[in-house]
Amino acid sequence: MVEREEEQPAFEIAVVVPKRSNVKEEDESSECVEVLVHDFQNVGLLVERVLGVADQFIKENKGKSAVILKHDGKELRWEVGERLLPKLESQGIVKQVFPLHDETKRKKLLHSWALNWQDFTNQPIDDIYLYFGTKIALYFAFLGMYTRWLLFPAAFGILLQIIDFGPFRLLVLPIFFICIILWAIMFSQFWKRKNSALLARWQITYPIGADAGYKLLGMEWGSLQSPIELIRKWGTDNTKEKEMFQRNEWFGRFMRFRNDALVILSIICLQLPFEVAYAHTYEIMESDLMKFGLTAIYLFAIQYVTQIGGKISVRLIKHENNENTEKRADSLVYKVFGLYFMQSYIGIFYHALLHRSFLTLRQVLIQRLLVSEVLENLLENSLPYLKYSYKKYRLRRKRKHEKGSSTGKIQFTSRVEKEYLKPSYSASIGDELEDGLFDDFLELALQFGLIMMFACAFPLTFAFAFLNNITEIRTDAVKLLTMFKRPVPRAAATIGAWLNIFQFLIVMSICTNCALLAWLYDREGKWKIEPGLAAILIMEHVLLLIKFGFSRFVPEEPAWVRANRVKNATQAHDMCSKQLLRTISGGERTFGEVKKFESQD
Amino acid sequence: MVEREEEQPAFEIAVVVPKRSNVKEEDESSECVEVLVHDFQNVGLLVERVLGVADQFIKENKGKSAVILKHDGKELRWEVGERLLPKLESQGIVKQVFPLHDETKRKKLLHSWALNWQDFTNQPIDDIYLYFGTKIALYFAFLGMYTRWLLFPAAFGILLQIIDFGPFRLLVLPIFFICIILWAIMFSQFWKRKNSALLARWQITYPIGADAGYKLLGMEWGSLQSPIELIRKWGTDNTKEKEMFQRNEWFGRFMRFRNDALVILSIICLQLPFEVAYAHTYEIMESDLMKFGLTAIYLFAIQYVTQIGGKISVRLIKHENNENTEKRADSLVYKVFGLYFMQSYIGIFYHALLHRSFLTLRQVLIQRLLVSEVLENLLENSLPYLKYSYKKYRLRRKRKHEKGSSTGKIQFTSRVEKEYLKPSYSASIGDELEDGLFDDFLELALQFGLIMMFACAFPLTFAFAFLNNITEIRTDAVKLLTMFKRPVPRAAATIGAWLNIFQFLIVMSICTNCALLAWLYDREGKWKIEPGLAAILIMEHVLLLIKFGFSRFVPEEPAWVRANRVKNATQAHDMCSKQLLRTISGGERTFGEVKKFESQD
Repeated sequence: MVEREEEQPAFEIAVVVPKRSNVKEEDESSECVEVLVHDFQNVGLLVERVLGVADQFIKENKGKSAVILKHDGKELRWEVGERLLPKLESQGIVKQVFPLHDETKRKKLLHSWALNWQDFTNQPIDDIYLYFGTKIALYFAFLGMYTRWLLFPAAFGILLQIIDFGPFRLLVLPIFFICIILWAIMFSQFWKRKNSALLARWQITYPIGADAGYKLLGMEWGSLQSPIELIRKWGTDNTKEKEMFQRNEWFGRFMRFRNDALVILSIICLQLPFEVAYAHTYEIMESDLMKFGLTAIYLFAIQYVTQIGGKISVRLIKHENNENTEKRADSLVYKVFGLYFMQSYIGIFYHALLHRSFLTLRQVLIQRLLVSEVLENLLENSLPYLKYSYKKYRLRRKRKHEKGSSTGKIQFTSRVEKEYLKPSYSASIGDELEDGLFDDFLELALQFGLIMMFACAFPLTFAFAFLNNITEIRTDAVKLLTMFKRPVPRAAATIGAWLNIFQFLIVMSICTNCALLAWLYDREGKWKIEPGLAAILIMEHVLLLIKFGFSRFVPEEPAWVRANRVKNATQAHDMCSKQLLRTISGGERTFGEVKKFESQD
Repeated sequence: MVEREEEQPAFEIAVVVPKRSNVKEEDESSECVEVLVHDFQNVGLLVERVLGVADQFIKENKGKSAVILKHDGKELRWEVGERLLPKLESQGIVKQVFPLHDETKRKKLLHSWALNWQDFTNQPIDDIYLYFGTKIALYFAFLGMYTRWLLFPAAFGILLQIIDFGPFRLLVLPIFFICIILWAIMFSQFWKRKNSALLARWQITYPIGADAGYKLLGMEWGSLQSPIELIRKWGTDNTKEKEMFQRNEWFGRFMRFRNDALVILSIICLQLPFEVAYAHTYEIMESDLMKFGLTAIYLFAIQYVTQIGGKISVRLIKHENNENTEKRADSLVYKVFGLYFMQSYIGIFYHALLHRSFLTLRQVLIQRLLVSEVLENLLENSLPYLKYSYKKYRLRRKRKHEKGSSTGKIQFTSRVEKEYLKPSYSASIGDELEDGLFDDFLELALQFGLIMMFACAFPLTFAFAFLNNITEIRTDAVKLLTMFKRPVPRAAATIGAWLNIFQFLIVMSICTNCALLAWLYDREGKWKIEPGLAAILIMEHVLLLIKFGFSRFVPEEPAWVRANRVKNATQAHDMCSKQLLRTISGGERTFGEVKKFESQD
């Protein structure tokens, strides 16, 4: 639950409870909705009750005694210390708790952000952070920076398209390739810097690498105990705990490795043939009508394939014991991205690598980019609206059916009920772990892969991507501000798995562009690589990939060390309190003396 | 200064002052050595004065008033608050301050560690840590783990040498190569884990990557102030400071980049031709005598080259504004390693790449390994002893000269004077930034490069390296315990630049071994690579190197964010104290209420 105090009385959270069917006025005080409302008021929250068409809404911006609560005749026992809201939610009495839009802020953001086409990539990022929380703000900051950075390759790509370099034509493309790769490398690193700068600005402490401040603090507290004692102590009581942690850690890693291997294998064995078969049949078909029909069947099929893949991934992840939900979400992102990666690029690879037809490749690239630009942006914004309208329509019909056709058209007057009917900002695959940002980031990553991996084949793609992202910022903003329920703010310090995916795509693009260049220079197919040399080159690339990817599988810090450190940080905190108390009770003694006193006993 | 309290009265630090020439008894109380001794006694340190042959020694385990101190007739003013020891050192009155060996512990370590040949790689690492401090303990932990891990490739290499695989001979080598690379990748990652485990054991807090404990702490303190206020505040007063930090950071980075470029360029332009010339002349010379002469001249020349290179590097580093001395030392290590890398491997590369003679390559490899094994270990241990003996001899002669030849042989009876005469554990290049560990790590890194980069040419090298390291542990231990003054313990959380160098060597070895394998399979030179393809491959490798090396040049966290965080950590600490004081003065108020109170004003 998010409780933020602001100046104007804007309602922040809605609690949805069903309308009572049998209203008995005699026992109002123990009726659980009443108790809840009373409790909210007790902690100083403004509460407004709105009776909606179908449900009752309690808007709000917790007592001590075991109480028997009543709801619609049923009785339930509210234990001491139990939190009421989760209890009522689990009992189905509270239907939903969701954050409410703040109309004034929403309108201000709509004006300064979503409908502001003047500053191309500048966004009121602090306001977005304050309204939507870190995770969404980081997404938009990333999107903004990515789009701004895209200007350079877009301009370079347009130049390459316009100017005829004549004899230098074959020299310009490698230069473009090198520039693009350097651009991408710098972008990913500078995003990390921007990310940490944003966190510093928002006062979210998240140490990266060596940390002088924390070290200082830790050293100071560490020095209170003599190291000899500590090492002796360590040997006896912590061995068991350490072993437990290690077993747990390695079992978790094994499970994750097994799952990843499963996903990769099934992608290669099941998805790859399917995609190649589609690309091949599309290529050999002659009639356009049949091509259209095939594509329709294919699009229908992959919808199911990704859904099934997503569900399998979610199920697999539940068996992994990832440290926290963030790691869990990352694990899911990697798996599902593997699926989408295959689906999006294998067809293009097919054209690029097997047919060596640059013309078809360019056509496919334009096709894909236009599809993603027009179709996806349209879908993104119309689908939630259609869902919302359908929900409204169904509710109206239900009401009409109940009340008879006497009242005519039913109006949804209360803003809170309208918001309740809006769909929530959730991911297309399993909304338990990820919110709607998953789809938005996926779109970005797939676009980045598309423009980077085939940069040499069609330098103009960057310009398309730039235009696409300029509109993407606006459509995503409109979507969040008007189409969906206000999303629950999620804490996140980085964009997580997505940055790693971007970096993986950079490495991939170095390799694919080199292959493209080789094919471009060798149009006649004169260059020959001995199978032995090819095998060695493949081995080298795989080993390099393992070298740079291994650290992702085995973290630098064992689980028990991490657990120990968290414990120590808490202890240090406690010790700070204890020491201060002693200092005060001791009157004249200084802080340094207390320290000495501590180390002696 | 290191002050550790232990149970037995072992003297920990020696302060060397010259013997007074004219002893005036009248003004004993303001004579500065007396003042120093008195001061040491005042803080509860045990002080023992030993009059040596040439100097006076004060053994020991700080007043407030501006005093005029006298020494040998000269007067100097001791200001209030000024620390006496550094002052006297700068005035040349205190000749040297150095930590003393603790005889009982030293003997125990000598027995359980240096002369203990039974447990091959197990070392009493906690005792080493307690005696020598983190940095040296980490070196030995690394050396031990590296040697232990070497067992696997050593055994594999011996197997390859013994068993004749017949027709599978050409299949076994790539498998060996893959195993070795995987082994090295795992070793470098598991060392990081071991390192953090050791730090946890020694209670040295040093967060790596995401840090739950600190985050928790930081978040808690961060939430005390409303984020809106903070963002507003940020905009006004911190912009200037931020700009200053950024300018400073980028200027420093530019200087470092310039210096690195200078070093790399001079290595390529000056050292490379020199080394290649030597390798080539050695190859074409026929008489063995001339070869011997050439090698002697070469060895004499490179001694100077590395010394000059080291001095230039040290001077260059002084113009870089690295954040701390650790970063500074790392910067030096990279530069000097570049020099040694060229010097050690270019000759081998010459044999491997240009001559394609595997036989010569193997001979060179054995030669190098034996030289490093026998010669370096011998030199390492005899050189300090020779230095020590020469110092003793010179001092004796000087005394004799002064006193006349009447007293006969002068005995150095006091242990402290003997230790004073021992050389200090310092690096062969510039002892300002690094201690003797530089040379030891350099030896290890060069060995690692040698065995890894040419693994496919001669799998047996791993066995040589294993044997070498088994003795290396002992000789290094003996050297530290008996040959040198006890080194000043240095704080270090990791092995720093050396791990990066090891990782760089792994990447290099992937590429060189692939080249070796290609040449091995293509003995007739049938495989041809078109120059275009070769150019593309080189471009690809350079880009991959940039991709994975760029993050070393531009850190993930801007300097101003880091500075800000350190400031915040200190503030949080202060706030903790302030809040507790309020809690206590407020009497009945709980901690949570105080928090609320804070956020309102």
